[in-house]
Amino acid sequence: MSNYDQLISHYQTINHFNHAQSMLGWDAAANMPTGGSDARSQAMAELSVHVHRLSTQPQLGEWFNNAENELLNAEQTPLITEKKASLREMKRQWQQATLVPEDLVQAQSIAGSKCEHAWRSQRQENDWTGFEKNWKDVVALSREEAAIRGEALGLTAYDAMLDKFEPGTTTASLDTLFSDVKTWLPELIEKALAKQQSESIIMPSGTYPTAAQKSLGLEIMKLLKFDFDHGRLDQSVHPFCGGVPSDVRITTRYDESDFVQALMGIVHETGHARYEQGLPKAFAGLPVGEARSMGIHESQSLFFEMQIGRSKDFITHLSRLSADAFNAYKDPVFTEENLYKLYTRVDKGFIRVDADELTYPAHVIMRYEIERDLINGVIEHTDVPEIWDEKMKASLGITTKGNYKNGCMQDIHWTDGSFGYFPSYTLGAMYAAQYKATMTNTVNIEAAIQSGDLSPIFQWLNDNIWSQASLHTTDELVKRVTGEVLNAEHFRKHLEARYL
Amino acid sequence: MSNYDQLISHYQTINHFNHAQSMLGWDAAANMPTGGSDARSQAMAELSVHVHRLSTQPQLGEWFNNAENELLNAEQTPLITEKKASLREMKRQWQQATLVPEDLVQAQSIAGSKCEHAWRSQRQENDWTGFEKNWKDVVALSREEAAIRGEALGLTAYDAMLDKFEPGTTTASLDTLFSDVKTWLPELIEKALAKQQSESIIMPSGTYPTAAQKSLGLEIMKLLKFDFDHGRLDQSVHPFCGGVPSDVRITTRYDESDFVQALMGIVHETGHARYEQGLPKAFAGLPVGEARSMGIHESQSLFFEMQIGRSKDFITHLSRLSADAFNAYKDPVFTEENLYKLYTRVDKGFIRVDADELTYPAHVIMRYEIERDLINGVIEHTDVPEIWDEKMKASLGITTKGNYKNGCMQDIHWTDGSFGYFPSYTLGAMYAAQYKATMTNTVNIEAAIQSGDLSPIFQWLNDNIWSQASLHTTDELVKRVTGEVLNAEHFRKHLEARYL
Ligand SMILES: [Zn+2]
Ligand SMILES: [Zn+2]
Repeated sequence: MSNYDQLISHYQTINHFNHAQSMLGWDAAANMPTGGSDARSQAMAELSVHVHRLSTQPQLGEWFNNAENELLNAEQTPLITEKKASLREMKRQWQQATLVPEDLVQAQSIAGSKCEHAWRSQRQENDWTGFEKNWKDVVALSREEAAIRGEALGLTAYDAMLDKFEPGTTTASLDTLFSDVKTWLPELIEKALAKQQSESIIMPSGTYPTAAQKSLGLEIMKLLKFDFDHGRLDQSVHPFCGGVPSDVRITTRYDESDFVQALMGIVHETGHARYEQGLPKAFAGLPVGEARSMGIHESQSLFFEMQIGRSKDFITHLSRLSADAFNAYKDPVFTEENLYKLYTRVDKGFIRVDADELTYPAHVIMRYEIERDLINGVIEHTDVPEIWDEKMKASLGITTKGNYKNGCMQDIHWTDGSFGYFPSYTLGAMYAAQYKATMTNTVNIEAAIQSGDLSPIFQWLNDNIWSQASLHTTDELVKRVTGEVLNAEHFRKHLEARYL
Repeated sequence: MSNYDQLISHYQTINHFNHAQSMLGWDAAANMPTGGSDARSQAMAELSVHVHRLSTQPQLGEWFNNAENELLNAEQTPLITEKKASLREMKRQWQQATLVPEDLVQAQSIAGSKCEHAWRSQRQENDWTGFEKNWKDVVALSREEAAIRGEALGLTAYDAMLDKFEPGTTTASLDTLFSDVKTWLPELIEKALAKQQSESIIMPSGTYPTAAQKSLGLEIMKLLKFDFDHGRLDQSVHPFCGGVPSDVRITTRYDESDFVQALMGIVHETGHARYEQGLPKAFAGLPVGEARSMGIHESQSLFFEMQIGRSKDFITHLSRLSADAFNAYKDPVFTEENLYKLYTRVDKGFIRVDADELTYPAHVIMRYEIERDLINGVIEHTDVPEIWDEKMKASLGITTKGNYKNGCMQDIHWTDGSFGYFPSYTLGAMYAAQYKATMTNTVNIEAAIQSGDLSPIFQWLNDNIWSQASLHTTDELVKRVTGEVLNAEHFRKHLEARYL
């Protein structure tokens, strides 16, 4: 067997253990009673250790060297391009697993768990002083990680952290993209608010039974052609998309006094799910057959949520299906006009996860700027609350002075050291808008949504994004699909068209 | 670290992978869409291979030798008895894993899968000739396995197969027990049938919605003190009890035209579940902390089903709770008298899984006699249909001549070579009756059931059976608990009291 084939077989083995890990994680969130958590945590930790051991086996370095030569000597053989991409992605995962020394990983895991666990109550109590003591270690260890990764990859500290979630994305490119957004976003928000001020809107005030919301969710998933032979919908406290490509498990959370969030949440997770379901079978179980990045994943969920879900045409379907589901044909909450207002309402608030489409980028950009400077050592962790307050005042005109729990302590990401993740959300929104702009050249999107048969849209996404998995780098992918590198122009036009 | 401690740590590691395997198996039966099965099978096969590798690691033999000496030199230390039992059970699992050469295990797995898969349609088509061709290999390989196990353990061929499911049980003891049963069972069946002939019974004829049956099932589980913090109830095609002791997953199947089976099925599986939930936390994840045997497991489910569930006092609760659940207070189906008749009806039928409490042992004993002679080489696999017909005529007075699908082709067990399993069912029923007889000395069982607080019963089972896990051999366990070895006397008395 060639070393290339040995690598293929090795990564398929790893994938089988990841399958188990992924399903246990889904089950823990969707089914597991509290009393099961100790044994489950132990089992999942054991699987992690095993996957880490497999991912860092000493012979891999030699296999990668040999496999690269094997492919160099096989230029004329079938599928050589795909094989090279496959090798590149296996090597990437191997590097990610081996770059950071195990004792640092261990220390990070301990410090991160401690900080996150304490944060759950400290946030409630607005206890910055308590939080800061734990967070200090998390930040220090993340800086250490960033330095090691940066050294090995020839990247700056923060770019090395970005590389974990968005391979190829740099501070330079994000600075360009986000400073562009900052030139027009504040004014756009003000204009949208001014426009919406005069509108009247009817808020949901009834009771929306979980069973009816779930049936409605399943109807929407059918409209979005979720493949129920390869996935299912369940409930969990924090909605997510889990499982494996051949069996995607999405979850949502129901609030019986308001259907708005759960419903659009299902649209969002269905976008993630269809990406997974559309990944190429030929590369199933291999790194090259996995989703390209966090940002591209989010581009698909946000394409479903923002480009399809909150469009007027789609909301016509939502209006009809909701009225059916809640047996509320005369309820003015469910008219097309009112639902559209509900789903496009702009509001300057403290909390990112509650933010609307228009203010969301402001939340993300300030987090990006802070974590970039924090990891690069430009600021210290104790500076964060003050900088947060300044940025909130500058971007959304609200202060968080002394309000840590609705300020810099609101998100889970930083508590366990997931620095470099936040930009993915807004990158996803930008990719989605850029894809939409290209799609418009060949697909009559409005007509497809109006007809209720959205296949042409999904076919385009499948051909251009889903089926391409990780065969190309992120930059190559967006250039192949849209003919240009990622830029904020399409995003701006999309927002202006919707909110002005 | 001592070799004993190394073994403890090693078996805990194995347990974590078994946790994953168990949950993936439950999920495949309870949740997984069809399209997920290929990837799931691959993941589960990988976990099996890994567990097998861990269970047969070369250094284990030396560790076991050294650990035995370590414990011999530690006679005066705390918990030495438990440690010896723990070592005995780890060693037992090691022997079970290593006794049979891997190429034989592999050949059995292939032949078993092939035979079982083909059987699913061959049974429908009554195709003995087709089945016999595949089964021939399964039988030959099982005989080979039995010879190897027997040689290593100093047992006869069939006793070596019994040892897999009922360690310590022998043909000699089963011959004694079952020939006793055969002296009184046929007459008892005839008398019960004669008695029931004059009774009138009202069969369920309504519609019993799944949701209502599930709520009722959950109520019954509460009455039986199922710990919902460590388990849950779901649906699957074949009801079973899975998961892990800290998170037991039981399933049932609902038939909307008949509540009878699902309801008692839940009682049965709750018995299995409470045994698992009651296993000692101190030995969690170790072989000595696992259920003693298939027969003892079945003794707990059958204690719940036969000794509690079908008692007149318990059926009073079922009557009340079912009338509540189906909102059917005036329906004569749900009177205590009628429900009791439904749950104690005797009927001589072809099919074991549909058999009542009284005829069930006849089905098991004939299977035992046939598989014993088949594995010992006394009969050939081609003799089975004729012998089956003779035994059915002798025990239940019905012929299966030419009726293979309702005769020797009805069960899945033999198709994949699970010889030695059948006796567990009737051993379980006998253990349950014998435990009940002892429990009566110190617990007022009728009063406990009548009061609706069954705790005294469960406390007894917990103290005597559940908390004892595999600390004692099966024979020691039953002698400690009941003061005598297993015998058929209590089973006979129980059946006579209920059916005469
Ligand atoms: Zn998302
Ligand atoms: Zn059972």
